[in-house]
Parts: sequence; C-alpha cells; structure tokens
Amino acid sequence: MRLFQTGELRLLKEVRERFRLSPDEKGVVVGIGDDAAVIAPHHKKIIVTTDMMNEGVHFDLGYTSPFHLGFKIVSVNVSDIMAMGGVPKYLFIDLAFTCAADDEFFRGIYDGVEQAMDLYGVQLLGGDLCSASNDIILSATVIGEGERVVTRAGATPGDRIYLTASTGDSACGLEILRRLNNEGKQRIKNFRYWRGNAEARECHDAPLQKTEGDAEELALEKDNGTITIKWEIARPLLLRHLMPMARDSRYMAPYASAMLDVSDGLFIDLCRICDESGTGAILYSEKIPLSEGLKKVSGSLDRDPLDFAASGGEDYEILFTAADFPMESYNQAHDIKVSCIGEITRQERVVINKEGRKSALKAEGYQHFGPPR
Amino acid sequence: MRLFQTGELRLLKEVRERFRLSPDEKGVVVGIGDDAAVIAPHHKKIIVTTDMMNEGVHFDLGYTSPFHLGFKIVSVNVSDIMAMGGVPKYLFIDLAFTCAADDEFFRGIYDGVEQAMDLYGVQLLGGDLCSASNDIILSATVIGEGERVVTRAGATPGDRIYLTASTGDSACGLEILRRLNNEGKQRIKNFRYWRGNAEARECHDAPLQKTEGDAEELALEKDNGTITIKWEIARPLLLRHLMPMARDSRYMAPYASAMLDVSDGLFIDLCRICDESGTGAILYSEKIPLSEGLKKVSGSLDRDPLDFAASGGEDYEILFTAADFPMESYNQAHDIKVSCIGEITRQERVVINKEGRKSALKAEGYQHFGPPR
Repeated sequence: MRLFQTGELRLLKEVRERFRLSPDEKGVVVGIGDDAAVIAPHHKKIIVTTDMMNEGVHFDLGYTSPFHLGFKIVSVNVSDIMAMGGVPKYLFIDLAFTCAADDEFFRGIYDGVEQAMDLYGVQLLGGDLCSASNDIILSATVIGEGERVVTRAGATPGDRIYLTASTGDSACGLEILRRLNNEGKQRIKNFRYWRGNAEARECHDAPLQKTEGDAEELALEKDNGTITIKWEIARPLLLRHLMPMARDSRYMAPYASAMLDVSDGLFIDLCRICDESGTGAILYSEKIPLSEGLKKVSGSLDRDPLDFAASGGEDYEILFTAADFPMESYNQAHDIKVSCIGEITRQERVVINKEGRKSALKAEGYQHFGPPR
Repeated sequence: MRLFQTGELRLLKEVRERFRLSPDEKGVVVGIGDDAAVIAPHHKKIIVTTDMMNEGVHFDLGYTSPFHLGFKIVSVNVSDIMAMGGVPKYLFIDLAFTCAADDEFFRGIYDGVEQAMDLYGVQLLGGDLCSASNDIILSATVIGEGERVVTRAGATPGDRIYLTASTGDSACGLEILRRLNNEGKQRIKNFRYWRGNAEARECHDAPLQKTEGDAEELALEKDNGTITIKWEIARPLLLRHLMPMARDSRYMAPYASAMLDVSDGLFIDLCRICDESGTGAILYSEKIPLSEGLKKVSGSLDRDPLDFAASGGEDYEILFTAADFPMESYNQAHDIKVSCIGEITRQERVVINKEGRKSALKAEGYQHFGPPR
C-alpha cells in the first residue's frame, strides 16, 4: 500500500509501537510520541552529532534497498560519536518519503534502523516523518555519552598516526555498483545480508571466504565491454559501501591524542587533524593498509588501489594519533587490526612512497559542491 | 556565486567562523567543527527534538526567502522544547542545497538562523551541509534543559483547556500567499522583516497598527477574479506563517498538567492530549480566540474563520491543560494572552457552538501522506 493511502498518523503509531521503550531503560524520561524526548544522562557530558543522506547524492535506489538505507543512516551517525570516544545511546530520525514509497519501503527502512540499533545498542527516541516532493531524505541525530572526549585538535609532533582496518573499500564498492548491469543492481538491492547482532559482526568483518551462493560472478561494464569479478571478492566491498559499520573506539580512545572517522577520504581527513592540531604529517604510502578485495578489483579495473584508499570516502574507519598506542597487543586481541601509517610532524605535510620519493599531502577527498570527480 | 563554485570546505569554514563560541559559553565542551559536539548540561535532564522542512512540501520558494526558512526551522524546533516546559539551549542544523543555490541564498538562511538564535538564546553547535538533487531540505535538532517536563499525558477530567494567542492565522497567511500574483509573492520574499531581538518580539506580536509602507494593498486571486486586502491586515498573518514565533511557556509550565504546541491544527492536537491522557474534552467554539486579521481576511475570502482556527496548522501556540491556572493575573502582565477554551472530560469529545449545539471533536488537521485538502 502506498504511504499516501496509509496516512501519517497510522505510520507514526506503527513506529511508536515498534520501538516502545523497555521498562528497564532508566536513562529515558520521555520516549517517542511527545513534542520532544527527555533524557537523564548517566554522564556529565553528552556528545551530539547529526548527518543527512539524500537520494541522488548519497544513494541511488537502483541498487540500494531501504534496509541498507536504514542501517547506514544509523551507522554513519554512530561512527561520529565513536570517533569522539563516546558511547552512542539515543537515536532520532527524520524521514521524508516521496509518493512512490509504500508500506514495504517504509518498513524496510525501519528494519535496517532496528538492525543497526541492536548492533550499536542505541535506542530510538523520536524524529519526524513527512513527505518529500522528489527525493527520499534521511537525517539522523545520535546522542552519546562519555567521560573523556577525543577531538581532532590534540595531535602533537612525534605522535604516530594509526588507522583501523583499511580504507578504499567503500569507494571501490561504489565503483562496482555503478558498473553493474540492471540485473546485478537488482540482485544487490534484494540482498538484506543479515539478521542478528553476532551474525552481523561476523558477516561484516569476515575474511573473503566462500559462502553459499558466492560462486557466481558479477558482470561489470568497462571500456564499452564487460568484465566479471567473483561475488566472494565483491561482497565485502559492496557491504562496506552499502552498510558500513562504525568502529568501536573504546580501546583506542584512552591513548588517542586526536581522533576522527574517515568519512570523506584518508588524505582529506588526516589534513583535518593537522589543521585542527596545527601540525603537519608524514604518511608512508606503502604502510596504508589495502584489503585483498580492493587490490583485486582495482587490478581488474586498471585502477591504482592507493587512489581509492587515499581519497575514497565513506569508509568510517577510525584515524587517530597517539604517542604510545600498544598496537601489537591490541592486534593480537582484536579482529579489526590497527596499522601505523605515519607520524605527526611540526609543519611538513608529505606522503613518502616505497621508493622514498616525497609528494605533498593534499586534502583530496569528497567535497559537496565541489568539482565533479 | 553558485555553491558548486564555492565548495563545501569554504562554506563549512564560513559557518564555523560566524558561529564561533563565545568563551563564556560554559556548558559547551566542543562546538562546531569536530565529529560531534560535546555538551555538559547544567540540568540532570535534557530535552531533544528534531524537525524537517522540505521544499515543495513545507515551503514554496516562490514566496519564501532563505531568511524566512532559516528563522522558521529554528522556531519550529524551539517550540517543541518550550512545549515540554524546557529552555532551548543548543541547535544543530542539516542543510541540503540544490545546484541552483548561491552564496546569497546560503547566507540568507544563516541570517535567519542567527536572528532566531538571538531571539531564543540558543547556540549553533553543529550540523551537516550537503548537496541535494532537486529540493532544498532543512532539518534541525534542538536540545533544551529543564527540571520539570510537561508531557501530553497528564490531563485529568475537570482540568481546563488553555490556548495562547490564537490559532488559524498561519493557515490563513498561507491561503493569502497561495492567492498572490507573482509581483505580490516577490514582494513578500524580499521582505526580511526585522533585525534585533527586541524589535523582533515587538514587530511580531504588535497589534494591527499601520507602519511605513503598510498603506498598500495586496491583490489576491479569487473565483477567477481579484480582490484586494490591506497590507496592514495581511502582514501579521503572513508573519505567522513565514516566521512563526515559539511561545515562551515558562509561566504556564508550572501549572500545566499536559501541554503541546499546536503544529498540525487545534482539533487534532487537542485530540492528541486526550489520546495520551486517556480523557475526552469539551471545546466551546465561541471561546476559540480569533485574531482581527483572521476574521477580516476570512470574510473577504468567504471562509469561516473557525475552519482556519480549528484545523489550520503551524500556529505553534501553546495548548495546555491545568486545574488552576491564574489566567487573569497572567493576562494582565503579558502581551501574549491566554484564553480558556474548554475543559477535559472523562470520555466525551465534543465541540459546543454558541447556540449550544454539540458536534463531535474530530482529529482534523494536517497529515503527511493524507488525502489532499
């Protein structure tokens, strides 16, 4: 049924009943359904972020399902809270639907939202539900708590620069999506991926192992022809783009002097730390971690994987600086590895490649209202 | 200059510099410019609300200036905080611009935002700035503080029902805007109305007095012909729609058993109080306050002013219930008057007109995804 036949009041009621507070939710005084929500935080500081996703700019409904959208709008906001060293707690979502949207689409978004809520332990407390003329819009606010917060401004010359997992996968996943034929796009769109918390983490961060249905290949357009890549190679890259995971920062935060999540690109976001901290940075390009999938697909597309890793956006990895982060013991205990990729300098901003050649570290990455890339 | 020539980074820098925190802003630990803002609230409870405004649904750029938009997105969110009995403190704004937007439009929005910030005493702490495919989108989150909050759920049979100022003006203002010719629309759009806090309050709530330039008439389309209404009559109605003011609830809140702001319409919002409180209500239609402007313009348009007052949206007046609100002494001391319009009953929901005839009180008002009105 189209939403225009359903009506806002019934939709609001559905959301309210679905996300009713459990009686043991002690920090919430007033939940969904009033003019505003009321929270009694446990900590003295609250951390607040908000981010928007717009059809045609941030996502293409040709290959993105409502489930992906719901999951992603929560993830990208939770990621900002974690990048401050906070614990995400409360979620508010504004949704604007076009007249093309139906009940299934509406519920699909909230299925994705709920999945992400379970994964990150956040509670939906409110939002706005309205109509849109042309494009579907999602906007979320996440409120977190924390004692010590880590800004972008604390890096000191001599600090090392660390990165979780690897960057570039999301941009490469987007490149795959753009080159799919319609059958491939539809297939991606129909795939909901997971249910359940443990499975979510496992599935998302699993190595490139073959699972049922993974034998098939995806056909990609390239130079007026077609190439194929294995589904098992494409899958994690697609996941990284369609349903990014916010990285848990609680082990890094106590050591970090500066920290952010890589949303616009590794280089541009490292420059942000330098700008805020009043420092420079040396980055060793051969130390920038590249996933196996990224290397393989970049090869098939005749692209340098470092381009994706340096300036591709939406990876939501944690980039942080620290004087003494115990990386080795951390990596022995955790699946998501941390790499040291450079160090903070007084002023100089350079990338050094494996032959030792220097080039300028420039703020390259995604910019809204910037020149087309 | 078009925003696409300006680039996101320069725009973000401009916003950040413009809304830099003053050093005496003690409650804010981290302001604009990091992954998230960090707040150390003075009170144990925080109140959070979020609301969205979409081009083509909530506003028409044919007669709405960017200044109006910036002012209104703050007002409608502040109103929700005040309707809980809270004090608004912090503001977050997500803005999505189309490629048609230029620097002037961009700054116009922030001019309106700043005006509203001054008026309500809120501080901008963050947000998101991005591009949109077809429509301009504004979404804001406002965080307030308060000790005692007033929900919609506390009304008790025997409580009286109170309303600030009057409803219907905003819907009537919208009706005027829709009937303007292009010259009239352009004139409204170019009018920025006010600068400065004291002037804002005075101008907004002033009676229908003639001010410079008010002698002219506005031409409205009606029944394939044209009628004219005086600018001094139209002005307050237009203001109520384009730049609504959130009502200060601090004097009502200590007495109120239930409270909300009338955003979708008086009847639908009173029904919300009844639904949440598990009560009914009697409304005396002749006690529903009607502004002089509403009565005059409704007359000219052959419409019943009570229709606007009962089911017109976006007035943002405070509707509250109380057992013993000292209305007379309140009204002697304040410019924005409060009227008693009915009482809470156990179950029955009726409207009684001046002849004593009863009709059912129905949830009539604006519904997104509802049938066209």
